[in-house]
Formats: sequence, C-alpha cells, structure tokens
Amino acid sequence: MVDYVKHAIQDDYSDEYSHCYGCGRLNEEGLKLRTGWNGDKTLTIYEPRAEHTAIPGFVYGGLIGSIIDCHGTGSAALALHKKNGHEPGDGIEPPRFVTGSLHVDFLKPTPQEVPLKAIGTVEEIHPKKWKVTTEVYAEDTLCAKGEVIAVVMPDTFLKK
Amino acid sequence: MVDYVKHAIQDDYSDEYSHCYGCGRLNEEGLKLRTGWNGDKTLTIYEPRAEHTAIPGFVYGGLIGSIIDCHGTGSAALALHKKNGHEPGDGIEPPRFVTGSLHVDFLKPTPQEVPLKAIGTVEEIHPKKWKVTTEVYAEDTLCAKGEVIAVVMPDTFLKK
Repeated sequence: MVDYVKHAIQDDYSDEYSHCYGCGRLNEEGLKLRTGWNGDKTLTIYEPRAEHTAIPGFVYGGLIGSIIDCHGTGSAALALHKKNGHEPGDGIEPPRFVTGSLHVDFLKPTPQEVPLKAIGTVEEIHPKKWKVTTEVYAEDTLCAKGEVIAVVMPDTFLKK
Repeated sequence: MVDYVKHAIQDDYSDEYSHCYGCGRLNEEGLKLRTGWNGDKTLTIYEPRAEHTAIPGFVYGGLIGSIIDCHGTGSAALALHKKNGHEPGDGIEPPRFVTGSLHVDFLKPTPQEVPLKAIGTVEEIHPKKWKVTTEVYAEDTLCAKGEVIAVVMPDTFLKK
C-alpha cells in the first residue's frame, strides 16, 4: 500500500469542476481529497484536521462520510476514464461524476492524528452509473465501510 | 415552520461532548448545528458557507451528509430525552448518541445562499437504538433524504 497518491483524477478535472469542498484543487478552505489507482483498487489518503473531531481523540463521522463521498465520485471517474483508455496524468480531461446516494456504516471509533486510507472497489452497474464500495482504515483498523452510487454529471448541470 | 431553533439539544450537552465538528458549541471551526423540536418533528437549520460548494452555485453533498448525521444524533437525543420526561432548556443533561449508520439519497442539486432545513422523524427501534428519517429542504424544494441509525453512546467511549 502506497502512502501517497501520485496521479490523482482530481488533478485533471477542468477548472470549473475543481471547486468542490471535498476534492477541488481550487477550493482553498476545502479538504483537497485526491484519488488514484492502487493496483485494481482506488485509494484516497487524508489526515483529518484537529477540528475534525466527534469527541476529543476521535474523527467526526461527517468527515468520514465526506471522504467516502468524494472518494466514490473520484473512483467512478477513474474507472470510466480507464474504460475509455485513459489514466490520470495522460493529459486527457476525465469524466466528472455526481453522488446519487451515499451510505456509511461506522464500525469503530476512528482515531485522530492518523492518516486515513479509503480503499475502493468500482463496479459498473450502468454506462452512466457506477457503484463504489469503500473501506476506511486507520492504520490496520477497519473503521468504516461505505457505498456510493456515482452518476455521470449531466451536461446541463453547470447551466442550471 | 420556524426560522430559528430556540432550544437546541446541543446547547445542553456537557462540555466534554460539545467538541463535535458538526454540532459542538465549543468547536470554533465547526458547523455548530443545532437541533430542536418543531411540533412532533425535529428541525435543524443551517446556511452553508461559501466554500461548501460542489460546483459553483450548488452545495457540497458531504456537507448535506454532515447535516443529516448530526441532525440524526441530535434528534435521537431529543426523543430519548422526551421519553425520559425532559426537553431542551430544562436544565437536565440529555443523553448523547453516536452514529451507527448514515444514508443519503441526493434528489436534486441543492442551491447555495439559502438556509437549509432538515426535518426529522424519530422512531425507537430498540431502547438504545433510534432511527431518524430526514428530509432536507432548500426553501420549498426537497433536495435530499436521509436516514441515520443513532446509538446511545457507550459509557466507555470517552475512556477508550
């Protein structure tokens, strides 16, 4: 398991799609989540900030949900981009997904001051709809499981 | 429908339980979500910050998930407190819940610059486990539906 995502799909989103609080490289206050391939799994690594606490010492569940959310749309984008013959860093703009649904099962209290690793498995359930199953680890402890249904962003979305 | 929650359950949590990024009154960087009764429903009102964007003009889904999460634990606390004969503001410390699971269905893009209202229905499914079904509105538009399974926080949680 690598400790750094070298080529992330979010690095290649166009500027107009790069303002997401969770994963936009242009959102100064945001989390700047980055998702790449790790073998045939997808990987997002994030160390929560001190304020991302539920009770002192443990990570806020909504932050874990946010990681699973953006990891999900990023993973779906990676998978469709791969299906189209591309990979992050090759200079081709990837597809952009939105979240249709998000589910999180919180299994154990998640300790702070540890980088969290979200590891995803992507499955195409429709050409425009992908399911991403995610496990979130703090070191070797599985703390949460998630599922995102990610949908290709409609062309009209920006104009609405 | 009121526009302000006068007595919120989070106002009465003890200091040690008031550091949550989502709903802790002592978390300076947090969202400070506040949940109270509105008739037999529960209500949380929050206007997302400018940076809480998915793409410009629309609210970040992870933020909506965070609202549903804390609204869920807060609603469960309200309901158990009521079952025990209490209400926010009566000077009795309420029970504190943790999130067992979180589910969000994103129905429509959620516009920014509008206060969001999360309206919850609480159901006891076990003395220590409550289900909270939530609808999130931007003005009159239902933008997301959520479900939280909230569990009474174990006494040992703070000591772990």
